[in-house]
This record gives sequence, C-alpha cells and structure tokens, in this order.
Amino acid sequence: MSETEQKTLPTVAELDARIRRAPYHQWLGISVVGVGDGEIVVELPWREEFVVNAEVGYTHGGILATMVDLVADWAIATKLGRPFPTVDMRVDYHRPAMKGTLTVRGKVIRLGSTFTTAEATVEDASGKLLASGRGTYATSTK
Amino acid sequence: MSETEQKTLPTVAELDARIRRAPYHQWLGISVVGVGDGEIVVELPWREEFVVNAEVGYTHGGILATMVDLVADWAIATKLGRPFPTVDMRVDYHRPAMKGTLTVRGKVIRLGSTFTTAEATVEDASGKLLASGRGTYATSTK
Amino acid sequence: MSETEQKTLPTVAELDARIRRAPYHQWLGISVVGVGDGEIVVELPWREEFVVNAEVGYTHGGILATMVDLVADWAIATKLGRPFPTVDMRVDYHRPAMKGTLTVRGKVIRLGSTFTTAEATVEDASGKLLASGRGTYATSTK
Amino acid sequence: MSETEQKTLPTVAELDARIRRAPYHQWLGISVVGVGDGEIVVELPWREEFVVNAEVGYTHGGILATMVDLVADWAIATKLGRPFPTVDMRVDYHRPAMKGTLTVRGKVIRLGSTFTTAEATVEDASGKLLASGRGTYATSTK
Repeated sequence: MSETEQKTLPTVAELDARIRRAPYHQWLGISVVGVGDGEIVVELPWREEFVVNAEVGYTHGGILATMVDLVADWAIATKLGRPFPTVDMRVDYHRPAMKGTLTVRGKVIRLGSTFTTAEATVEDASGKLLASGRGTYATSTK
Repeated sequence: MSETEQKTLPTVAELDARIRRAPYHQWLGISVVGVGDGEIVVELPWREEFVVNAEVGYTHGGILATMVDLVADWAIATKLGRPFPTVDMRVDYHRPAMKGTLTVRGKVIRLGSTFTTAEATVEDASGKLLASGRGTYATSTK
Repeated sequence: MSETEQKTLPTVAELDARIRRAPYHQWLGISVVGVGDGEIVVELPWREEFVVNAEVGYTHGGILATMVDLVADWAIATKLGRPFPTVDMRVDYHRPAMKGTLTVRGKVIRLGSTFTTAEATVEDASGKLLASGRGTYATSTK
Repeated sequence: MSETEQKTLPTVAELDARIRRAPYHQWLGISVVGVGDGEIVVELPWREEFVVNAEVGYTHGGILATMVDLVADWAIATKLGRPFPTVDMRVDYHRPAMKGTLTVRGKVIRLGSTFTTAEATVEDASGKLLASGRGTYATSTK
C-alpha cells in the first residue's frame, strides 16, 4: 500500500493486535500504547531472562537493539500499514537498562519508495534515555 | 587485565562456561565451539520463540543483532579475558534466517586501550551469510 | 574541561574562529551561524569541486558525511569547549544535494565522560532533509 | 546491467578513467591501482588541504569516510559496471592518518538486486589499518 493510498491512521488496538502476532514479540511481552502519523510508542515489561549480568541485573543490549529495530519498523506501519524488512540498523547505548518497564518511541525520518529511514529511542520509567538508534527498511518489498 | 598481561588464550570450555552465566544467553541456548587469538565461534540452536513471521517462519532480526553484538564482544574476551560494554553497534541483514542452528564468528578488528572495534558474521548450516556487523566496545571500563 | 566547569556558552564568533583553523574546514568554506547549549548550526556554501556527477551536478556523499561528522563533533564543543576524536560514525542519505548552500544542525544526544553521542542533519535552502547521522566521540581524550 | 550479464571484469584502466570523471575525485587525486571480482584497490595521495589539525598534521576524518564510501561503492562497479547511490554508511576510525599516500581496499560483502552491502579499509604506507567501514548501496536504481 502506498502512502497516498493510506487513508486513515491505524488505531493503537489494530497495531497492538498485529505486532503481537510475532512469536518473538509475544515472548518479549510488548504492547503498543500510542500511535501517531509516522510515530508509535511501545512498552516492554521486564522479564528476568533479559538479564545479561546476574549480579548487577541489567538488560542485555541485544534486547535493546531488538526494540530499536522493531519499534522504528512499526513506526513505518503507521504510514504504510505494515512493517518492512530491515536492511541495516545502528544502535547507540547510553545507559544500562535496569529492572523495570521500558518505553520505546519510534519515528519515521524519511519515507521512500525503495528504502525508508526510521529511528527509535528507549527510555526507562523516569524518562531517562537508555539507548537510541535507527534503521534502513526495504519499503519496496512486496 | 591488559592485553600484555593475558598470558594464554582462554579455552573453549572456559569461555563457554563464562558466556553461559548470562541469563539471556542461557535462554538463547548459545555455546562456544571455537576460540582463537581475537577470534571466537558461537553456535545458536533454533527455538520457536525466535520467529517473527509465523507463516514464513524466519528468525527475528533482533536475535541476529543480539548475536552479532555478543559474539563480537566475546571475541574481545579471547584477548582481554572478559567482554566489555557495547558503545554502539551496526548490523546488516543479508538473507532471512530460517529454522536451524546458526554459526556466528567473531573477530577483533582493532584492539584499543579505550575503544575496541570487533565484528561478527552469522551463517546458516550451509555456510550462507545471513547477517554481519560490528560494534565499538568500551575497553577502558573497569 | 568537564561540563560543570564550563561556565558560559562559547559565542558564534569564538566557535567560528576555532572551526576555521582546520585547513580542510577552510577549503570547505564552512562558517558557524548559530550556537546553543549542546547545539550548533553550520553553513556550507557550494563549490564546484564538491560534485560527484558532472552531468547531474549533485554533491559527493563524502562531503555530506564530513559535515555530519564535524558538526556533530562541534555540537560537543558548545558543551566541552572543543571537539573530540570521532570513534565511529553513521550517515543516512535521504535526498541528493544539488547546488546551493547547505545548513547543518548538530546536537549532543548524550554527554559522557568516556564517550559522547551526537547527531547532525543536513538541509538544503528550502529546509529539505538531505542527510542525517550520528557519531560516537572519545570525550575522555586529553 | 545484472551480475550475470557482466561478462568480463572491467580493467584497472577502465575503472580508473571512470572514477576520475567525478570532479571531487579529481580534487582528491585518487587512482585505481587494482581490480578483482567484487574487489578494488584505490590510492589517495596526500594533500595539505586534507589536514584537520594544523599542529599535528593529520587528515580529516571526513576524507577517510569519503574514501570508505566511494571505494566500497566502486567495488560494486567491478561486478555491476558502475557505482550506485549510497543509502547509508558507517565508518570506524582506528588510528590517525598522517601525511602520506593511503591505500583503500573495497570489497562486496553481499550483492543484492535491491540493496548491496560493501566494505572498505584504509591503510597507510606501512599497511597499518587507519579506518574501516561499510555501506548499503541502492543497486535497484536505474
């Protein structure tokens, strides 16, 4: 579906139902809590399997990278109706993520017919920036 | 421990025991299968929670990003005795990862006293390149 | 100089004088046109040597990458008094840069004692986003 | 031109003539010195405008980023007959580049019909690795 054919913004409930279809998303426990035009907000509750260092108790960077990738991608879904394959991705780690729900905000930077750039930020419950990044997505894919 | 203090290469069994301490690594089910000087090989068996698209059955890009990050980091552990915090990371996705064990090869590109660059490649059982990437690691961290 | 020791924001004139010391910056012809706390705006006039494709006349991606790197770095200078070595950098290209002055806006994302993340955007005269990116800078360096 | 239609490898002289058409490449002074299947070697002589720090005399990171981008791209030209637009790029800086000719080696990592990943390394005259990186190129572009 092209951007111009996209008549109305998908609702939080619609995107939440779709994002949960993925078995890995179910395991992560994510839910969509906000939707805008080219923007989405997703929450990730904590689970003990996320931990990389059992003594200190912080979440594995791979979980944060996963959240950046998927939330940036689902920001595109608010524009084009669905997510698209990731071509490449960069994530920057700013602070350790301790136990607690994380809020991830995705945003389309530039929508293109062949590839699209989108970004996401990961924040803890106090709004502190833990990680951020961006990806290139193959929006020409059928 | 500095590079010069590192007398002997850790064994596969030593690194395997250490890498399995992380709860998330246990959930992933990874094992160390090869060790060299600045190089490591890690295997990831498939599990159904990895899947992003239930119809097609391929593995979530976040799992591949996680493997690139952690295996590049543990390549540093062959040099410095332990992994270090990831500063940032890039991953390129080359082909979908279908059901099956993945082999991930990590390699130190340039070891530094403050920052170290390391890379990793993800291959399927037939040796096909599925994803690759690199990270910057804060090797000055105590 | 630590962030807390930094008493007052450098002025546009001060940063402009400092940024022009670099021979490559002189060749580029850049000037500082705006300064904020962790933010900077730099202008790049066009010169014909920038062109990659003589028929179509657009600017080489390397020039845009250079601008992203240096302007993100000089955003740090508004906080710490000077730029720092780039550890790594990513740039995304959104649209071709045709003949004309470019405006590049830099911003610190997260200031750290060892490494700092900063970003920059490149816009044409009409405010269209041409490229954007971010870098990691070694702010522990003496 | 698709990869299968590409009958013979372009020669060093052919690629050198083509790469020099770009005004910015002429200013840089680059020349193609080696060509393989999906591989290319390009030399960059030093010029004093490259310098970022007049006291220490090392080359601007933007010049190294430019070399990584363009040489990775021209590695694709050995496969597909010409370079393609850069979608995004990452470069890691390993050591300062002092006065002297640099050798840049490009290599295709994975050739795709829509996107291609290629990498490049920058070495000094003694073979020391100064910078390395990779880009995604839009190989579907007409």
